[in-house]
Amino acid sequence: MKIGILTIGNELMNGRTADTNSSFIAREANQQGWVVEAIMSVCDGLTAIKNRLDYLLSMSDAVICSGGLGPTADDITTEAIAKAFSLPLYTDENVLNYIRDIFTQFNLRWVENNAKQAMFPKGAQVLPNVRGTAPGFSLSINGKMVFAIPGVPAEAKLMVTDSVIPALRKHFPQDELYIVKQTIKTFGLSEAAVDDKVKDINFNSLGVNIGFYPVFPENHIVLIARGKNQNEAQKNLQKAQDEISARLQDYIFAYGEETLEGVIAGLLTEKKLTIAVAESCTGGMITNRLTDVSGSSDYLERGLVTYSNIAKISMLGVPAEIIEKHGAVSEETVRLMAEGLRKLAGTDLGLASTGIAGPTGGSPEKPVGTVYLAVADSRQTACRHYAYRWDRQRNKEVFSEAALFLLKNFLEGKFS
Amino acid sequence: MKIGILTIGNELMNGRTADTNSSFIAREANQQGWVVEAIMSVCDGLTAIKNRLDYLLSMSDAVICSGGLGPTADDITTEAIAKAFSLPLYTDENVLNYIRDIFTQFNLRWVENNAKQAMFPKGAQVLPNVRGTAPGFSLSINGKMVFAIPGVPAEAKLMVTDSVIPALRKHFPQDELYIVKQTIKTFGLSEAAVDDKVKDINFNSLGVNIGFYPVFPENHIVLIARGKNQNEAQKNLQKAQDEISARLQDYIFAYGEETLEGVIAGLLTEKKLTIAVAESCTGGMITNRLTDVSGSSDYLERGLVTYSNIAKISMLGVPAEIIEKHGAVSEETVRLMAEGLRKLAGTDLGLASTGIAGPTGGSPEKPVGTVYLAVADSRQTACRHYAYRWDRQRNKEVFSEAALFLLKNFLEGKFS
Repeated sequence: MKIGILTIGNELMNGRTADTNSSFIAREANQQGWVVEAIMSVCDGLTAIKNRLDYLLSMSDAVICSGGLGPTADDITTEAIAKAFSLPLYTDENVLNYIRDIFTQFNLRWVENNAKQAMFPKGAQVLPNVRGTAPGFSLSINGKMVFAIPGVPAEAKLMVTDSVIPALRKHFPQDELYIVKQTIKTFGLSEAAVDDKVKDINFNSLGVNIGFYPVFPENHIVLIARGKNQNEAQKNLQKAQDEISARLQDYIFAYGEETLEGVIAGLLTEKKLTIAVAESCTGGMITNRLTDVSGSSDYLERGLVTYSNIAKISMLGVPAEIIEKHGAVSEETVRLMAEGLRKLAGTDLGLASTGIAGPTGGSPEKPVGTVYLAVADSRQTACRHYAYRWDRQRNKEVFSEAALFLLKNFLEGKFS
Repeated sequence: MKIGILTIGNELMNGRTADTNSSFIAREANQQGWVVEAIMSVCDGLTAIKNRLDYLLSMSDAVICSGGLGPTADDITTEAIAKAFSLPLYTDENVLNYIRDIFTQFNLRWVENNAKQAMFPKGAQVLPNVRGTAPGFSLSINGKMVFAIPGVPAEAKLMVTDSVIPALRKHFPQDELYIVKQTIKTFGLSEAAVDDKVKDINFNSLGVNIGFYPVFPENHIVLIARGKNQNEAQKNLQKAQDEISARLQDYIFAYGEETLEGVIAGLLTEKKLTIAVAESCTGGMITNRLTDVSGSSDYLERGLVTYSNIAKISMLGVPAEIIEKHGAVSEETVRLMAEGLRKLAGTDLGLASTGIAGPTGGSPEKPVGTVYLAVADSRQTACRHYAYRWDRQRNKEVFSEAALFLLKNFLEGKFS
């Protein structure tokens, strides 16, 4: 099957927003074994949208349009699609009530132009939007299909996987090809190094496609296995995954939808351990990631951002002379931060970071990008030292990832 | 002038690579006052490239093609463009020697297919590539222009600013149109409500375009003003900005590249104030945002994530009976968190959050999405209570934004 993708919005045409929906949709289509014939972006203009849609339909079995479904005057995708196929617009009362309910719930003032989001071309199937107010819709036109989905990436992605792909599979019944996917998440190797470690595996003979996706500071591997039935596809996938796991075991921290903080949550809960975090250079990012997991209050007793030396001394019990002698950014300091913290917080574990995120504060001995990390329990303290060379934001991200990665390995007994 | 953009590569069509060149080229073109008429992506296929190029040329004065200039077999952009205009290919000996020199310099083994990068359609102007081996080229076709530039973003960007834009300006002498832009960042109103508040302004008569861009949980307004010279464009922009500022003054927190945490950094530095942060439901996100600003260690003394009641009692001095009586999520508790924190930390200001990010922990009286915020100095404490209804991640984001927004207003004396 051939797919066309049309992303709609003035913000794409003036370069204010980079189009990330296209590559997401293309990847999803590709994983179904479909061919993306063309990707286009167009401004919020009635004639322009209609013309581009005609062009894409001339070469595709289905066109997925993203963007321009919002309440403001420049959102005209629905109207443009209706015009393109000479369909009248109608208001779906159920959708209108749903949107009104959201406004009531959120205590927002109702503005009449929001009602526009409940209008659809005649014959459209409404696609629910659980993450926003603007639903999508699909139309069947002379055997071809046209979809309209929101431009907001989080809303668009969910609608593609939950509504668009299933609708397309139903409308264009597939041959018996069955597809299963797996994501393998790694940290600590460059993309090229990950590639190099697995390149001897004959993925083709396993009926598996492999893709590499850097998601800074992580590198993800996506496996797509095909088979005549679910069982065969699953078996092929498992073989490929086992081969990769054997080669990358020191770098893999999660599979599928799991996150590093989610894996840590599972380990802490399983082992019934509590933790406290003391951050310097990471500025709250480690704690913020840990608290992204629902239920983290069960094991996270406290998080401290001890930016100043005084905070390190008074809140963590790091002796002033240690900071004086070795510096705030040192293995000695980070070790005592982690050990002091867990004693003062009364937790099983203490996790600490100290370093230089930049752009200022570096020195020849300790350049920007230097970080010291430590995890302590009652028996031992594990310390690590890394030197990265990113900007402030990315340094904070890679420091935090390295800290959580160290914590995961510690919890798995890799330092015992 | 009308511009078409064509990005070329199988990696774009299967979603493995997101196209970032298009938005960069679009932004550069937009800043010249040119209109980007269409953006397309296409696979590495001779006929497909030729067809898309024809389509784009039918609506544009110039088409910029990116990608497919490399040495491997799938790089066929040069050949496709030559075919599209029935031009023979020739080898440019100077370019060939330049590429050979690079291989010698870097001690790389010469492979014959590299010579492909020195081939151009007859009549092409070579565009130098100082960051890679593949040069670009331009062609003038019946008064229109076609450019081919590399796909590697760093190479493409430099070639656009250094070669493509100057060549286009020379080929299409401009009218005197001058363009200036401004971004106005708001928080606290829905996109529709922002639109509603400014819809009576006659932007057209001011020569200004307005666009609305939700950047959760903020809503941004972008103004693009045109004029015969910089002065006129600037005057038009200022008029529109003044009109908007008057209507949205309670919601605007920053202009242009400024961020909320950056504005706060400026206010704290100017007033020579120090701050400490105590977070419950925001889990470190407020502190993490404050520390995204370089130099934040000058005013941020400490940040605490006091998830447990014990942490609130021991580290902030909130009396146990207050938490017992009113609950950890209450105005009484958040007020005492902020006040206790600033005393214990010895800072000028204390900022505190407590609430329920979800998905669990809600009750009929205090549902998921409830948040209490407080800022305290030596003279007063300002508290706010909000009820949002997002998922955990978005609740954390909107809670943090509301806390920083409250802090900004406090620093600006809006509660004095």
